[in-house]
Amino acid sequence: MRGAVLYGPNDIRFEDREAPKIVEPTDAIIRIAVTCVCGSDLWPYRGMQPIDGPTPMGHEYCGFVEEVGRDVKSVKPGEFVIGSFATSDNTCPNCRYGYQSSCAHREFISRAQAPVLRVPLADGTLVPTPGIPPNDLLPSLLTLSDVMGTGWFAAEAANVRPDGTVVVVGDGAVGLLGILSARQMGAGRIVAMSRHPSRQKLAREFGASDIVTERGDAGVARIMDLTNGVGADSVLECVGTPESMMQAIQCTRPGGAVGYVGVPHGVELDGQQLFFTHVRLHGGPAPVRRYLPHLIDLVLERKIEPGKVFDLTLPLDRVAEGYRAMDERRAIKTLLRP
Amino acid sequence: MRGAVLYGPNDIRFEDREAPKIVEPTDAIIRIAVTCVCGSDLWPYRGMQPIDGPTPMGHEYCGFVEEVGRDVKSVKPGEFVIGSFATSDNTCPNCRYGYQSSCAHREFISRAQAPVLRVPLADGTLVPTPGIPPNDLLPSLLTLSDVMGTGWFAAEAANVRPDGTVVVVGDGAVGLLGILSARQMGAGRIVAMSRHPSRQKLAREFGASDIVTERGDAGVARIMDLTNGVGADSVLECVGTPESMMQAIQCTRPGGAVGYVGVPHGVELDGQQLFFTHVRLHGGPAPVRRYLPHLIDLVLERKIEPGKVFDLTLPLDRVAEGYRAMDERRAIKTLLRP
Repeated sequence: MRGAVLYGPNDIRFEDREAPKIVEPTDAIIRIAVTCVCGSDLWPYRGMQPIDGPTPMGHEYCGFVEEVGRDVKSVKPGEFVIGSFATSDNTCPNCRYGYQSSCAHREFISRAQAPVLRVPLADGTLVPTPGIPPNDLLPSLLTLSDVMGTGWFAAEAANVRPDGTVVVVGDGAVGLLGILSARQMGAGRIVAMSRHPSRQKLAREFGASDIVTERGDAGVARIMDLTNGVGADSVLECVGTPESMMQAIQCTRPGGAVGYVGVPHGVELDGQQLFFTHVRLHGGPAPVRRYLPHLIDLVLERKIEPGKVFDLTLPLDRVAEGYRAMDERRAIKTLLRP
Repeated sequence: MRGAVLYGPNDIRFEDREAPKIVEPTDAIIRIAVTCVCGSDLWPYRGMQPIDGPTPMGHEYCGFVEEVGRDVKSVKPGEFVIGSFATSDNTCPNCRYGYQSSCAHREFISRAQAPVLRVPLADGTLVPTPGIPPNDLLPSLLTLSDVMGTGWFAAEAANVRPDGTVVVVGDGAVGLLGILSARQMGAGRIVAMSRHPSRQKLAREFGASDIVTERGDAGVARIMDLTNGVGADSVLECVGTPESMMQAIQCTRPGGAVGYVGVPHGVELDGQQLFFTHVRLHGGPAPVRRYLPHLIDLVLERKIEPGKVFDLTLPLDRVAEGYRAMDERRAIKTLLRP
């Protein structure tokens, strides 16, 4: 079997490695239908997050169960399943509280850019679809493994409410799906901060009512203009840099909320400054397992089409090209077909 | 008229200054019935917050209206009133959103350790009691001006829910009243972190079910023991140091909330570390104006007795002694009678 392995900055290789096998009785082996490259894969790809030697990549997946360990009860071979990028037993106190991505037995999936994947804690991590989904829905179902659930969590963490004013910082796939999520939650005005025409277009399709192209202080000033000097009720931070986090906080009204889902890199918050903004902060790795059943329904009923974020599709063996296109912002998100 | 003025570290003087007069037509002049020393007054008193020359002190007050400006409509001379430490017009978008302490026209009161006080924006800042309250309720009514409302906000910001598990970091007056607030909100277990017998006793009276005397990592470990390794649903941070903030965050379960009301001094939060805790953060200067009507009712109906936090009462001219007793932690909170 061949899979994607990161060797260092800008060095993704597609190379032979051992095919995964059942290790624990709670494991499942999945034949991957489609996988993709995540914005968060770009941190180590760009050398901005150190790696410990060659690192197999990929954490977004859906596909067919090939084999299950003897303790697996809720999925069986032949079923089509989608699972979270973070495994969960779905029974521990954190899982029952809705934070499956902080499960006491969490592992982060990291070998999904491959034709076959071992998924630990299969019962608590995977959700089967009712029957085999039509092929055209595979891209949208794939997004539920991470990027769509992460956009949804950003909106939920930012307390999006019917008719509320929402600002989305970051026009990557997560930000765009944060817009879609806020629209589903009934937000009123949704302002996308984006300077890329193709992303602006998708932002509008997903439900953005306004586009702001300015960034930093100028961007904050535009948001203040648009909100009569008050700031937004809800701000989705979908980047993870110090600049984007400050921009998000400064766009938020006192008592409003920032939902932050971009993995913070170099972000330091000054306690006293935050205190006087009166802003609520909530974020972290999205508990996408919690959202899977609902979001699968929305996709199968064709009420949402998050798969539109894929604007580049490649065979899996051209994975390196997929990373490059995203790194250079030529692609929003790359779908990979094994 | 004489009032308290801070000249530098440990140097509070009670000295002559001009009596306040109506300046704006929206002002009221209050004859103060009782005032007090706030934990936050200790930051500049200890030299941990710089001052610009001699600084009149005090921001907690209640008393009788003596005079009002010509635009004041909701209070009149002779009425007994309580006001927030932060003035508010109570009509701007931030006020209408419930964040009066971020009012567009906010000023912080700072001359209340005196017999007479000018209160700007009287209509939006002061709340009159129905009739003249009995003398024995004055200490409790005074707390509503800041410390009780701040404890209430800490509990609200920490999402205290019926039967939820609550931890309170800080056994000053705010922390103790955070316990009282959490009890009023129906919390289940309430753990007070305190090593001072007199404060532990009051914590129990206010509704704490458990006392933890350890601090720092040992304190966190004790909370984890008490919560089966999960952490608390709600944590009230009522100190404002880097140590207390980290302790609060580490005691909180993923998806749980920290309500922080101790003005942060030297607190820096690492974005990535916070991200992986999954903790919600909300805090700031408490919007006590929002709570005043409800809390006045609770005090007048004798359902709560927050005035118990005053364990030292002095005539106003002995204000310096009042600061000293709190600085040395001999007193929880000092009531001052003009």
